Amino acid sequence: MARLTLTDDDAKVRKWFADEVQKLGCSLSVDQMGNMFARQSGSMKSSAPMIAMGSHLDTQPRGGRYDGILGVMAALEVLRTMKENNFKTSYDVGIVNWTNEEGARFPKSMCSSGVWAGAIPIQMAWDLRDIHDSTVTLRSELERHGYLGEIACSNDATTGFPLGAHFELHIEQGPILQETGRSIGIVQGAQGYRWLTITVQGKDAHTGTTPLSARHDAMLAASKMIVASNAIAKQHDALASTGIIRVPSNASTNTLPSDVTFTLDIRHPRDSTVQAVQEECLKAFATISSEDGKGVSFNWTMDTDSPAVKFDQGCVESIKAAADHLVGPEKSMYMTSGAGHDTVYTSKHCPSAMIFVPCRDGVSHHPTEYCTPEDW
Amino acid sequence: MARLTLTDDDAKVRKWFADEVQKLGCSLSVDQMGNMFARQSGSMKSSAPMIAMGSHLDTQPRGGRYDGILGVMAALEVLRTMKENNFKTSYDVGIVNWTNEEGARFPKSMCSSGVWAGAIPIQMAWDLRDIHDSTVTLRSELERHGYLGEIACSNDATTGFPLGAHFELHIEQGPILQETGRSIGIVQGAQGYRWLTITVQGKDAHTGTTPLSARHDAMLAASKMIVASNAIAKQHDALASTGIIRVPSNASTNTLPSDVTFTLDIRHPRDSTVQAVQEECLKAFATISSEDGKGVSFNWTMDTDSPAVKFDQGCVESIKAAADHLVGPEKSMYMTSGAGHDTVYTSKHCPSAMIFVPCRDGVSHHPTEYCTPEDW
Repeated sequence: MARLTLTDDDAKVRKWFADEVQKLGCSLSVDQMGNMFARQSGSMKSSAPMIAMGSHLDTQPRGGRYDGILGVMAALEVLRTMKENNFKTSYDVGIVNWTNEEGARFPKSMCSSGVWAGAIPIQMAWDLRDIHDSTVTLRSELERHGYLGEIACSNDATTGFPLGAHFELHIEQGPILQETGRSIGIVQGAQGYRWLTITVQGKDAHTGTTPLSARHDAMLAASKMIVASNAIAKQHDALASTGIIRVPSNASTNTLPSDVTFTLDIRHPRDSTVQAVQEECLKAFATISSEDGKGVSFNWTMDTDSPAVKFDQGCVESIKAAADHLVGPEKSMYMTSGAGHDTVYTSKHCPSAMIFVPCRDGVSHHPTEYCTPEDW
Repeated sequence: MARLTLTDDDAKVRKWFADEVQKLGCSLSVDQMGNMFARQSGSMKSSAPMIAMGSHLDTQPRGGRYDGILGVMAALEVLRTMKENNFKTSYDVGIVNWTNEEGARFPKSMCSSGVWAGAIPIQMAWDLRDIHDSTVTLRSELERHGYLGEIACSNDATTGFPLGAHFELHIEQGPILQETGRSIGIVQGAQGYRWLTITVQGKDAHTGTTPLSARHDAMLAASKMIVASNAIAKQHDALASTGIIRVPSNASTNTLPSDVTFTLDIRHPRDSTVQAVQEECLKAFATISSEDGKGVSFNWTMDTDSPAVKFDQGCVESIKAAADHLVGPEKSMYMTSGAGHDTVYTSKHCPSAMIFVPCRDGVSHHPTEYCTPEDW
């Protein structure tokens, strides 16, 4: 599945979504970030904000058919089932399709729930440029497809589209449910994470003429740092990962690189543990810097600091009760989301929680992503 | 200094070199690889091959003023000093300027001494393409500048230009002489070395949703392998170095890379030690592959296998005697060359050896490369 946000394909699925919810009798509102709110009136004719089931229809460039999509499809199925059974909720319920959750085309993930939550300035979001064509902005694409709505992208009760609650069903994107034989994950919150970039400064040198004792070996030091960060994370039951490593472009087999840059992604459900892992890593890096040859130096920047999020206890317990009823307590488990989701932003302004379903081998962001019909 | 082989700048210095040696009364021969042989007749009028002092006038794109150049300049200074003092050797002596030693423009280092020694086929050398402009070959540049000589590029006594011996003065390109306070290195041979490329196959996975225990973490395994190869080399008093490391271009901070590729350069003056280090590394890599999470796999290729070279004992001892006379035994030392040089090829066909002089901080292939006048 390749449906980058606000492409012609995305416009097509938005049109389809609009038709489907209107067939069900929903009213449809679009805000200034193109977020689509389908609202099914309850029997009470109350002005209370609707209870939303939300996720996103956009995908990664080489994504799967479940990430995001399943949450919207499941919500649609809920409304269809209600209609088929002539069931009406007391208060309004509905569906949200959040724009540009992936951040794959316009590089800001959970972009429009972020604007809605007041965490991302709308101008900044509008100004995001297509990573492959800088003449195209997110706003110009909203305009081209007619999705620059009139409602403010906000949870403000008068100008925006406030929500009474937000539930998001999503594939786990990890292997835990499958490996433990559970079918529902009751998501209590999202891990805190920090993204660091570390640059190790050594000195380029001929690999044949420079004794080990005379080296400022940035490659060796960076390797030791990656190994150390993994060991430290393990001790804390946290995660530490290096996704990118770079040597200068003139690197060669017989020249020690002058410097090595790598990323470090640290995660744990508790912010204090993320902090502890970071501190221990930096301390270990300092030790490693003087361990071999003539030593190296290093510097680091923190590129992202995303504190842990706790979801609403009431929402979490309502999911727990439903899971117990549906699959029994032995087939569900409490979890913490390892990745970011729109619900992380909605949780700042309305009671929110998430439901995880298994995905095969934990694979996501890939065409082989799969969730069985039984599980969804 | 930027004087890539067979550029207009190289043609200029070749013209200058030809003028200088002809002023000294040398005859000049050019072979089919553009190697320049300046020959000063001895008093004996013998047909014995000349004793050569050789090195190269080409440089790296961002090189220094000593690597190669010093060997040719020193040889010229020897002939000038002989002339100024009306000194004539018994047999012929002379200078060689070897073409494309660096391999920086046409990617084959020690290219033309290699052809001369019969180790590199001339057609392959002629067909080498300019790394920045594939329409240009080494042969087309030899022709353009008039350096496609008529003599065979060979040590054959009738068709080529055989040498009676080959001495090469060169900066050390390492820190040993400076650190031990010596001014002359008597080079007994060149290290053996092997270049391996290792590819670690893991599995891309989300850094936030994939527990350490579920990972196929190629980055962690590659880092451990680099650390292990250094430790193993250290035990053998050998060298192990990683100059290049690569992750797929779609790598990101929050995705474990599917695979990691790195180079491994192993060196030691004894081939058996190079072999032992390689074997221990591959054994360690196999252990590392199953150490973490769900493991990784790896494969490797050997890209270069350059056995150790021993220089001629007579040449080595004549350098030792001269060094003792000039600076005293406490200021010279026996050494093994860590890098490749034209003399490695000449040594296969005529008695050869090298003289190292210190270079500041071991820096070479860099504009700050420096050797004091006292040392050269």
